[in-house]
Amino acid sequence: MENISKVWLGPLPADSPYVKPFRMYYVQNGVEKNWDLLKVHDSVAIILFNTTRQKLVLVRQFRPAVYHGVIASKEGSFDDVDLSAFPPSIGVTLELCAGIVDKSKSWKEIAREEMLEECGYDVSVERIEEVMKYRSGVGSSGARQEMYYCEVTDADKVNSGGGVEDELIEVVELSLDEGKRMVQQGAVNNSPPSCLMGLMWFFANKAPKNV
Amino acid sequence: MENISKVWLGPLPADSPYVKPFRMYYVQNGVEKNWDLLKVHDSVAIILFNTTRQKLVLVRQFRPAVYHGVIASKEGSFDDVDLSAFPPSIGVTLELCAGIVDKSKSWKEIAREEMLEECGYDVSVERIEEVMKYRSGVGSSGARQEMYYCEVTDADKVNSGGGVEDELIEVVELSLDEGKRMVQQGAVNNSPPSCLMGLMWFFANKAPKNV
Repeated sequence: MENISKVWLGPLPADSPYVKPFRMYYVQNGVEKNWDLLKVHDSVAIILFNTTRQKLVLVRQFRPAVYHGVIASKEGSFDDVDLSAFPPSIGVTLELCAGIVDKSKSWKEIAREEMLEECGYDVSVERIEEVMKYRSGVGSSGARQEMYYCEVTDADKVNSGGGVEDELIEVVELSLDEGKRMVQQGAVNNSPPSCLMGLMWFFANKAPKNV
Repeated sequence: MENISKVWLGPLPADSPYVKPFRMYYVQNGVEKNWDLLKVHDSVAIILFNTTRQKLVLVRQFRPAVYHGVIASKEGSFDDVDLSAFPPSIGVTLELCAGIVDKSKSWKEIAREEMLEECGYDVSVERIEEVMKYRSGVGSSGARQEMYYCEVTDADKVNSGGGVEDELIEVVELSLDEGKRMVQQGAVNNSPPSCLMGLMWFFANKAPKNV
């Protein structure tokens, strides 16, 4: 699905709407210190469980930041990345349905829209449960993320999902066994900790008890 | 513990060793796209359980990026942040013992050093279990994080921890009940998802079964 034909890097433009880096200065115990950080958007993530088919619904996509995280530790020119040495598949992640909070709507409404746009399920906000709130990163960005849980059925599926505009998002259904394997000891995932945390929360609190 | 007397923001210097922002360009399905991201260090995190006193060992610290994450959504001047309106305590987090991979040592050895420096426990690497590997962020940075688990006793405690140089890190011991409350439905934490994931993994796999 990634179908990437060329990759190259350039400097961050000063007017980037997504990544706004700063240096914060502060005086702690009388000592001046500083920390480099960036402003990113707050976000929502949704643990989606299709009860009709007993499947966890996740999304798979090419993530430039993950691709960069892999290649950045290697030698080579990044003016025109060698895609045979670094196949784009190394930047493909498996994640919960999620989205940034960039609209003047309630967070739960944004979660509802993301479920519809990314995964094709149309549900009312009343069916979305709040799970927990935390900081999506603490080292370089400190944005808030809220996690939700929603049970859906095949009857709620109104389109194939895949995102809006030029987003390329593949909807992936995992069996309960497949989800369990993602969070077992020794697992290696191209997933963020929020996704693994959501799966663990699901298995501890919501999964059918015979799993 | 935060004891912060002044906070202000400035531009990111071009030579920041911690935050290196880029714009990545790529061609996907024939369409040129771009994504703003930054390079951050890979890292380790350790779930620490003191079996002598049945306590989870975490760290509490002032995190500039979290403080910024809270104030960034408000109005006001950031040339000299009003600390009465934005008390530094809003930037204090509770996290697993963790550290960045910036030395030519094994990841497990770095985990061992962080346990000693931050929490004061001196253990051999053989006692550290690998839990799982994942991406510490997927939106703006795609660094690798590996999580470990280590059981310690009071006999392993050789100093009070607190970090090295001018780090100000407070060691916090949580009872099993306190740890459980951090990951229950409805919880609101100034913690990253990796910390909550680590706690969930501990309760599912390692906690005494009567908890």
